[in-house]
Parts: sequence; structure tokens; C-alpha cells
Amino acid sequence: MTLALDAAAQDLLFREARTANTFSDEPVGDEQIQAIYELVKFGPTAFNQQPLRIVLVRSEEGRARLVQHMAEGNQAKTSTAPLVAILAADNEFHEELPTQLPHFPQAKDMFFSERSVRESSATLNGALQAAYFIIGVRAAGLAAGPMTGYDAAGINKEFFADGEHSVLAVVNIGKPGEDAWFPRSPRLAYDEVVTTV
Amino acid sequence: MTLALDAAAQDLLFREARTANTFSDEPVGDEQIQAIYELVKFGPTAFNQQPLRIVLVRSEEGRARLVQHMAEGNQAKTSTAPLVAILAADNEFHEELPTQLPHFPQAKDMFFSERSVRESSATLNGALQAAYFIIGVRAAGLAAGPMTGYDAAGINKEFFADGEHSVLAVVNIGKPGEDAWFPRSPRLAYDEVVTTV
Repeated sequence: MTLALDAAAQDLLFREARTANTFSDEPVGDEQIQAIYELVKFGPTAFNQQPLRIVLVRSEEGRARLVQHMAEGNQAKTSTAPLVAILAADNEFHEELPTQLPHFPQAKDMFFSERSVRESSATLNGALQAAYFIIGVRAAGLAAGPMTGYDAAGINKEFFADGEHSVLAVVNIGKPGEDAWFPRSPRLAYDEVVTTV
Repeated sequence: MTLALDAAAQDLLFREARTANTFSDEPVGDEQIQAIYELVKFGPTAFNQQPLRIVLVRSEEGRARLVQHMAEGNQAKTSTAPLVAILAADNEFHEELPTQLPHFPQAKDMFFSERSVRESSATLNGALQAAYFIIGVRAAGLAAGPMTGYDAAGINKEFFADGEHSVLAVVNIGKPGEDAWFPRSPRLAYDEVVTTV
């Protein structure tokens, strides 16, 4: 046994977890999302920046506003999942750095005064946080259905009127339904991915 | 207990795990990295793309080639960590899509014929995979020390002569040493991150 993580946890998070395309009717409560957040907020990022923002789409009106921007093949599942979360990066995350990185508040101005630098950093670190969130959904015993097939500019404008946010993924969340997934597709072999110098 | 993941696993992966800045002398073997990869390769990405590439820096010469591109504050720990991994995105990942997404091989040309689109996709999905890898390091009972403070263009040129790869992070890996981390910095509160529509 080379890994310290127990086998049941390995299965829950990676080996048996799958991207769900159908869901049961069982609702997903705010307390579940909060429990996920309170765990995965500890995932590491550069300078302890926390650009990830999460919009939970609960109302019928909110669902309609979102679905219109989804790619056709994603509309049915986005319409019917118990809960849908929009994950976005706040490109103005640096405003929080002085309180989130109290031992080095100068980082805000030293590294993030340029918008293009902030945006790259928010995308990379927001994506790390998005991955932690997906792992967290699985840690809650739920299935995640992350999607990137949508009109990103449309979602950004619809849900983030300030023009400072960039959607990273839209994630359906719930208990898997019937025929929830395709057979698993192959993964690259270790030697195709890892080299040594 | 709202989460299905057991408390020990929660602690190992998120709550007690910390970014390490010093390491013990205990070596990190290839079999540990392979065990990590064989678990985290199952993390989800868009179109099952797998842009992440990992360069394990083991030789003295490789270490010197890397350290010269690290920011000054990262040089000492990058020089002394038991193992250092360069995580990069392969911007030509689409060449593998026909074998990695066998039920939809057309995706390669339908969605990824433009380099700029591929690059954005490789960055986002490579970052998701980088986060899964960091979680995997922790799952192996090791500490990760991910860094983004380096000359990215220098690393890309030094280690990826084809010009098709973009470094995402450099990660020190090992058992934590003395005074391995700072006190934990604050995280944003749930209500600062999550909204509902």
C-alpha cells in the first residue's frame, strides 16, 4: 500500500467517482455546499489568493437565465440537475490579498497591479480551487457534472454585471440517476505523462 | 456528519495538510509518484483531455537547470527538497483526443483546431489536473510545496524544447522538515464566496 489515503476514500474521490449526466430527484441543500466549502477552502493557492466565486442556481428564473447560455448538448442536464453551480474567477481578487496574506500585504501591489497578470493568476488559481471543489462534491457523497460547453461571454455578462469575473466551469450536482455515465474513457499511461531529468 | 469522506481523509488532504517550505532527507521514490498518478489520472477534465505533463527533477544537473529560473525566495527550497516536479500543460494535447475520447474523435478538429483555443483549454484543464496531483501528493502521506514564482519562459525553453508546453507550477515534494510552514493564513468566509440566484 503506497498511498496513505484509505482505499474507500480513494474510490470515493477518484476511482469510482464519475462525471454524472443524469441525476436523481434528491435535493442538494445549502448545508451540503457549505460543508464542502469549509473543507476545500484549505486547498493551496499562490499567495493564498482565493479568486473562486460560486453562484448556486436555485430559482426557476436563475435556471432559465443559465440554460440559455449552455451548449445544446448540456441544456437538458443543466435544466434538471438538483443543483447547478457556476464557478468563476474574480479577476479583482487582489483587493482581498492584504487581509488573506497578512504577513505580506505588499504582494497586492508588487505582483498584481496589472490587470493581465491578475487575470492569468485568477484563471490558474481559480481552476485549482475549482478542482478542489469538484473533489469536495465527491467527498460529500454527491456526483459532480462539470461542463465547459457554454457561451462564456454570455454567462459572464448575465451573472457578473461588474465585468470583473470569468466563468471557469458550470457544475451539475446531485445523486446520480439512471444511466448516469458513459463507460470510462482511457487515461494516458504513466510513461506518456511523466519524464525524469 | 454532512460529508461522506471520513474525517481522517479530510484531515490528510485538506485540514491538516499544509504547503511545506522545508523537508526531511527521506527520499521520494518513483513508485510513490506512479501510485499518485495512477489514482489522480481519474480526475475529470473537459473532453477527457489530459494536457498535464510532469517532469521529475532528480539529477544534480537537472536541479541546477531548474533552480536558475526560480525566484530568489524559492531557490533554497527547490535546491534541497527530496524531489521536485515541474507541472506543465502540453498545448498540443488535442493530438491524443481521438484515442482518449474514442466515442467522439471528431472533437479534435471540431473544437481544437485553433492554437489559442487549445492553449486556453490546456491551461484550464492542466490546472485542474495539477490540483488533482497536489491532492494526490497529500494522499501519499507527503507534503507538497507548489510554487509559481519563477521565470516561466525560461523554464519552458529549458525543459520543453518543442515550444508547445507551458509550465503551470513547480512542486517540491517530501516529508515536511523543521518549521516547515507559516501559520495558516485566513480563508474567505462562505458568504463572501457563495451567492444564490
